[in-house]
Amino acid sequence: MNTIEAIEARRAIKHYDSDHRMSPEEERRLIELAMLSPTAFNIQNWRFVVVRDMEIRKKIRAAAWDQAQVTDASLLVVLCGNLSAWKQNPANYWRNAPQAVQDFLVPAIEGYYSGKPGVQRDEVMRSCGMAGQTLMLAAKAMGYDTCPMDGFDYEEVEKIIRLPDDHVISFMIAIGRKTQDSWPRPGQLDYNEVVIENGY
Amino acid sequence: MNTIEAIEARRAIKHYDSDHRMSPEEERRLIELAMLSPTAFNIQNWRFVVVRDMEIRKKIRAAAWDQAQVTDASLLVVLCGNLSAWKQNPANYWRNAPQAVQDFLVPAIEGYYSGKPGVQRDEVMRSCGMAGQTLMLAAKAMGYDTCPMDGFDYEEVEKIIRLPDDHVISFMIAIGRKTQDSWPRPGQLDYNEVVIENGY
Repeated sequence: MNTIEAIEARRAIKHYDSDHRMSPEEERRLIELAMLSPTAFNIQNWRFVVVRDMEIRKKIRAAAWDQAQVTDASLLVVLCGNLSAWKQNPANYWRNAPQAVQDFLVPAIEGYYSGKPGVQRDEVMRSCGMAGQTLMLAAKAMGYDTCPMDGFDYEEVEKIIRLPDDHVISFMIAIGRKTQDSWPRPGQLDYNEVVIENGY
Repeated sequence: MNTIEAIEARRAIKHYDSDHRMSPEEERRLIELAMLSPTAFNIQNWRFVVVRDMEIRKKIRAAAWDQAQVTDASLLVVLCGNLSAWKQNPANYWRNAPQAVQDFLVPAIEGYYSGKPGVQRDEVMRSCGMAGQTLMLAAKAMGYDTCPMDGFDYEEVEKIIRLPDDHVISFMIAIGRKTQDSWPRPGQLDYNEVVIENGY
């Protein structure tokens, strides 16, 4: 599917064929495409918790206002971020670059994130946003639909997936075969309401 | 361009043809596509500051470690977020939905964000991440390349674009015609390093 078509056709879908499961190959392909999304300094701070186990999905559904797509979709991905990615062997993220690039960029990573928990958290949310949108568009192109979700009890889901202390959840995405279309776009802002020329 | 191809071909490009400018139609098309990205509760909290004015671009370049793409690219978009979007006439975001949906969702917006500045900020970073990736993939499909940037003095750029107090900058994207390819991906993590099955 053409990129522009995928962008235009993607909508948040709530109703899925609960009998359908993706093949392991499709699942891996989707995540590998999401992994091509950019991250600042190439720190690849996203972590994809792929939830297939139905008992765990039921627990997450209970923590997500009982939204049916959590269990009915073919797959549920919890997009998490590792707040410590920047300091965990950062040279590894640039290991194949020319030495001069490594010498410049690797120390810059420490300078950018060290002692700045707000910056680390913003980076996780941004990275997961980009990777999540890649995943949703790739899924659309592969014939699937998706539902991005942040309507759930974050602390509860963190416990269910046993998230490490230095990780946070950004959002979740349900992926599957839709059984019902979404409603029409419910109230979009005009171009001039969200686009500012040169400055406020 | 096919969606999967666009995802695979997109790379952060630093070198641009400084003589090239996008047409107003292309520019608008790009932003309109980014505006199709999802936001939680449809609050559309992104704001796109489109910087064409070269004097302003020079100031931003000075605040961005003198990175050439800030002035050389055809267009610079500063992706900002309105932290107050959730409370600014939220009924407007659902004005075309069935009454029952409006009655359920509009009050939920207040409950989700009110008194939670961290949640409001996370939402901006996530929304801008998704919209930014849409913009980068759409640009790729339209024959352009992009460079996502968070290597700049945020406070300084906020001043330059006269950002309102209840807005924040998420990141910037330079868009244009590349004159040089990027280096090969410099050190990608393996699938098993970022994918977790069912839980940690």
